[in-house]
Amino acid sequence: MASVTVYGPALSTAVSRVVACLLEKEVDFQLLPVDMSKGQHKSPDFLKLQPFGQVPAFRDEKTTLFESRAICRYICDKYADNGNKVLMGRREGGILEKAWVEQWLEAESQNFNPPCSALVFQLAFAPRMGLKQDPASIEQNEGKLAKVLDVYEQRLGESRFLAGDEFSLADLSHLPNSHYLVNATDKGGLITSRKNVGRWWEEISSRESWKKVVEMQKANAPPS
Amino acid sequence: MASVTVYGPALSTAVSRVVACLLEKEVDFQLLPVDMSKGQHKSPDFLKLQPFGQVPAFRDEKTTLFESRAICRYICDKYADNGNKVLMGRREGGILEKAWVEQWLEAESQNFNPPCSALVFQLAFAPRMGLKQDPASIEQNEGKLAKVLDVYEQRLGESRFLAGDEFSLADLSHLPNSHYLVNATDKGGLITSRKNVGRWWEEISSRESWKKVVEMQKANAPPS
Repeated sequence: MASVTVYGPALSTAVSRVVACLLEKEVDFQLLPVDMSKGQHKSPDFLKLQPFGQVPAFRDEKTTLFESRAICRYICDKYADNGNKVLMGRREGGILEKAWVEQWLEAESQNFNPPCSALVFQLAFAPRMGLKQDPASIEQNEGKLAKVLDVYEQRLGESRFLAGDEFSLADLSHLPNSHYLVNATDKGGLITSRKNVGRWWEEISSRESWKKVVEMQKANAPPS
Repeated sequence: MASVTVYGPALSTAVSRVVACLLEKEVDFQLLPVDMSKGQHKSPDFLKLQPFGQVPAFRDEKTTLFESRAICRYICDKYADNGNKVLMGRREGGILEKAWVEQWLEAESQNFNPPCSALVFQLAFAPRMGLKQDPASIEQNEGKLAKVLDVYEQRLGESRFLAGDEFSLADLSHLPNSHYLVNATDKGGLITSRKNVGRWWEEISSRESWKKVVEMQKANAPPS
């Protein structure tokens, strides 16, 4: 049995961020389902793993962890010599390349994720959950995301990937929400219509690791 | 002249996060003002440093960087042997202690910061900027922050600091918004009325580094 366990549904953006990282690092793991529709993420046992009652939670033979980006950093540290060895920058690039990855990983977390996840929720998930959409939220977050992607467009005109010449954890961290925006809403043009962002999206979403995540999500999707 | 320059007003929570980290690490730096009321953060020169037009920006002899938490990580990496050497966990604690710091730093970024900064904006900054307060936002974010702090209350009943026995970057990162919540709004009780969170707040806000940040903020505050 794999020593690494991830708890949560593959359909969750935060869970799929961790799964994509494990696949890039070629680390064996098992994904244990957490049925959020039944409130399993709020059960006393799950709260011992993730006290905020969110997914994913992570366990290996040494520790338990929560927060997807923190889990990804730990995977990169622990399995430094496995699989993709440059997710946190090339070793010879030292603390500078790591800093550039961290900078764009934080840009994802602070600038990209809030408006993109809000749009994905409103446009893709709210209808399936029988919730009413909020047109003001959609308009506001579309405007915010467009401004963020204008900055990305300039950056990706200078650089193949966000942090430099190599695919890194900063790019990877954008995959889950971008995937839903492009494939499950009518706002995917925010990404695909921008020349450099579109080229970057095409490249990062074609990675074998991400294609496996999408297969796992399809296998777990509720019947539509 | 110090080789490290931070661009932005000390009154900004993200700027003061970086300044507190530099003071903990005993790194010389200069703080260059950016007059946001005059739109200097949107000037072409500043956008070369920080393409999103936000503060802070950071420069040393090797690189420029943006995003406060990424800058703090770089400072901890670059000045590993300076000042407080355990901000990212004790060296002998290895990748596990670093992972626990990262976990709670992400909890600050994802769970604590959004509702706390929204409350601080509504209650402390909006009135000074002549903006109308949004009662619905205040009520919603107070509820969210209370739930987050209930988790912290349990954690800080088991552990002196969030990530373990030592003050870390995870604790430090909470200082800027908590400071305003406690000292510039009527909702400080969310922190001070909780036994363990209040004890933790008292301890972290009494550090010499943070007291210096508060002095710098007072020196830069507009006349009230």
